[in-house]
Amino acid sequence: MKELKLEVILSTEKKQKPSFDHLEFGKYFTDHMFIWNYTEGKGWHDPRIVPYQPITLDPAATVFHYGQTVFEGLKAYMTKDEQILLFRPDENFKRFNRSNDRLVMPELDEEGALSALKQLIQIERDWIPTAEGTSLYIRPFMIATEAFLGVHPAKTYQFMIILSPVGAYYKEGINPVKIAVESEYVRAVAGGTGNAKTAGNYAASLKAGEIASENGYSQVLWLDGKENQYIEEVGSMNVFFKINGEVITPALNGSILEGITRKSVIELLNYMNIPIVERKISIHEIQQAYQDGVLEEAFGSGTAAVISPIGELLWKNEKMVINNGEIGSVSKQVYDTLTGIQNGIKEDPFGWAVRV
Amino acid sequence: MKELKLEVILSTEKKQKPSFDHLEFGKYFTDHMFIWNYTEGKGWHDPRIVPYQPITLDPAATVFHYGQTVFEGLKAYMTKDEQILLFRPDENFKRFNRSNDRLVMPELDEEGALSALKQLIQIERDWIPTAEGTSLYIRPFMIATEAFLGVHPAKTYQFMIILSPVGAYYKEGINPVKIAVESEYVRAVAGGTGNAKTAGNYAASLKAGEIASENGYSQVLWLDGKENQYIEEVGSMNVFFKINGEVITPALNGSILEGITRKSVIELLNYMNIPIVERKISIHEIQQAYQDGVLEEAFGSGTAAVISPIGELLWKNEKMVINNGEIGSVSKQVYDTLTGIQNGIKEDPFGWAVRV
Repeated sequence: MKELKLEVILSTEKKQKPSFDHLEFGKYFTDHMFIWNYTEGKGWHDPRIVPYQPITLDPAATVFHYGQTVFEGLKAYMTKDEQILLFRPDENFKRFNRSNDRLVMPELDEEGALSALKQLIQIERDWIPTAEGTSLYIRPFMIATEAFLGVHPAKTYQFMIILSPVGAYYKEGINPVKIAVESEYVRAVAGGTGNAKTAGNYAASLKAGEIASENGYSQVLWLDGKENQYIEEVGSMNVFFKINGEVITPALNGSILEGITRKSVIELLNYMNIPIVERKISIHEIQQAYQDGVLEEAFGSGTAAVISPIGELLWKNEKMVINNGEIGSVSKQVYDTLTGIQNGIKEDPFGWAVRV
Repeated sequence: MKELKLEVILSTEKKQKPSFDHLEFGKYFTDHMFIWNYTEGKGWHDPRIVPYQPITLDPAATVFHYGQTVFEGLKAYMTKDEQILLFRPDENFKRFNRSNDRLVMPELDEEGALSALKQLIQIERDWIPTAEGTSLYIRPFMIATEAFLGVHPAKTYQFMIILSPVGAYYKEGINPVKIAVESEYVRAVAGGTGNAKTAGNYAASLKAGEIASENGYSQVLWLDGKENQYIEEVGSMNVFFKINGEVITPALNGSILEGITRKSVIELLNYMNIPIVERKISIHEIQQAYQDGVLEEAFGSGTAAVISPIGELLWKNEKMVINNGEIGSVSKQVYDTLTGIQNGIKEDPFGWAVRV
């Protein structure tokens, strides 16, 4: 891989690191960040690693008004023999560019961005926590910076990478979460931006998330926007259901995010010879399976949570307790294998783990 | 109205003003802006008018990643006798709070915000252009500023008002625009954020807008996200069709923005005894009316463009030229009356124009 030539300005003061035993998610940031600017007609310029610092933008910058912004999320892990591993990072930068295309934002040099990320992580290697369930969360993102109040794609952009040492995404850790199926609000619809990793999808999700949270549920399971019956995803996770021995996940349809963990789970289940199918699945089918006693397991997959078992689904007034609210055996197997590969503890027959 | 007490720091240097004869839209900004901060547990604090300057935000600020942001748009006009008029500004701040609620953002003190706006405009009165079709565009907006990478509502926000002297929104001015009806992409769906004035809706619209622009169309007319056949709106405008003597505009359904100009047009048409109805209307009905020769006029309404006649609609491969591509008589009457009230030239039986 070609190395991106960049300027490096090191911080003269190092931050006090938080206790790595009590990390929350996305609260602490490391000493440095990567910045790369784009100007129409000039292309990408001035790649640089600089001390972590505020961004300065004109109040009329496009990102504030018209939401032209894209992000990614991935993680770095420190192995027992002090190697740093990334999990399928090329997939993140590929998806970044798919999102860019949907938001009419300039194409990123994927190899250059990955090279910059590796250089940044080397500088910040002391920030990678090592306890089980911890990692260095990586947030590449791009924002439109042009100061102009017309609704059209901006002419200037800034791509950045920031890093955050993190613990479990849910306070439950690997313990099952409770999820409320949303019947009023909609996250995304076919033809919209649901399969792009862009801010508006998350903004749209907050209201339902707040209501679910007030009722004691960790997140919301979204249904499709057209018929309000087909399972989509859980905002920060794709979802899988084990029904009568077969694992089912909603097929990609344009409004569901193409999860990299989702893709990995499918490949892993195939490798393990556990039946897995991608297809449309309605909330009514889930409910019927539950009533028939064949809804055996449910779990979410995503970079932040990796695998998160679902112990309870609320649909309107019906509470469906899955596998007695405990993690199921397939969920556990998938979790152990994926996190094992990510941490370099388990054999990686797929070549997913990439050394920094 | 109670006056909001605020700090005023005047700019020591005044910008060179652009030529008011050649104003574009949203390109120039005045010397000052208004800022108001919100912190959970403390409420709104530190209202201030300061020199127009960049915003400084942590790279992890919620607005960059999860799109928690809301805005409004309204205009100030200078009358011939040097009075400054706003058009129904209370409606804008009411809608601001409806948008805030959808985005789980803190409620704004509407009266306080309007008071701040009036004080800001008094300071910037020399920036209000007077030529026909020009005005001072006002952009109140709020962004989530908390540095935290979890998907939840932020704990800190910044409300701001910036001002921009503007000419016509479309280069066509009051001349009819050509609009392409979108058949692939979707702006918003019921249950989503379509009726909130938030960044994600505009981000979602850019791709189709770009394609339309490449084909020579000014904007896109959106269809509903569920059945892809009912007329919604034109991103920056609501739409009206005159068919067989009756004016029809799509009924508010949760995914269409509740335009203040839209509301005013309806009230005005009722006042003028011109038949106006709000109801569902499909693209097929428009097409049929066109083929039957009874699609007499079409126009868009919005703060930026006020009234913009639609001279051509493209639906798949069919070009529908409306009223020979010329402004219709009802469109012209509505335009003249509305802009007349806004500029203080015409009688205002509704009490819409508010003196600053």
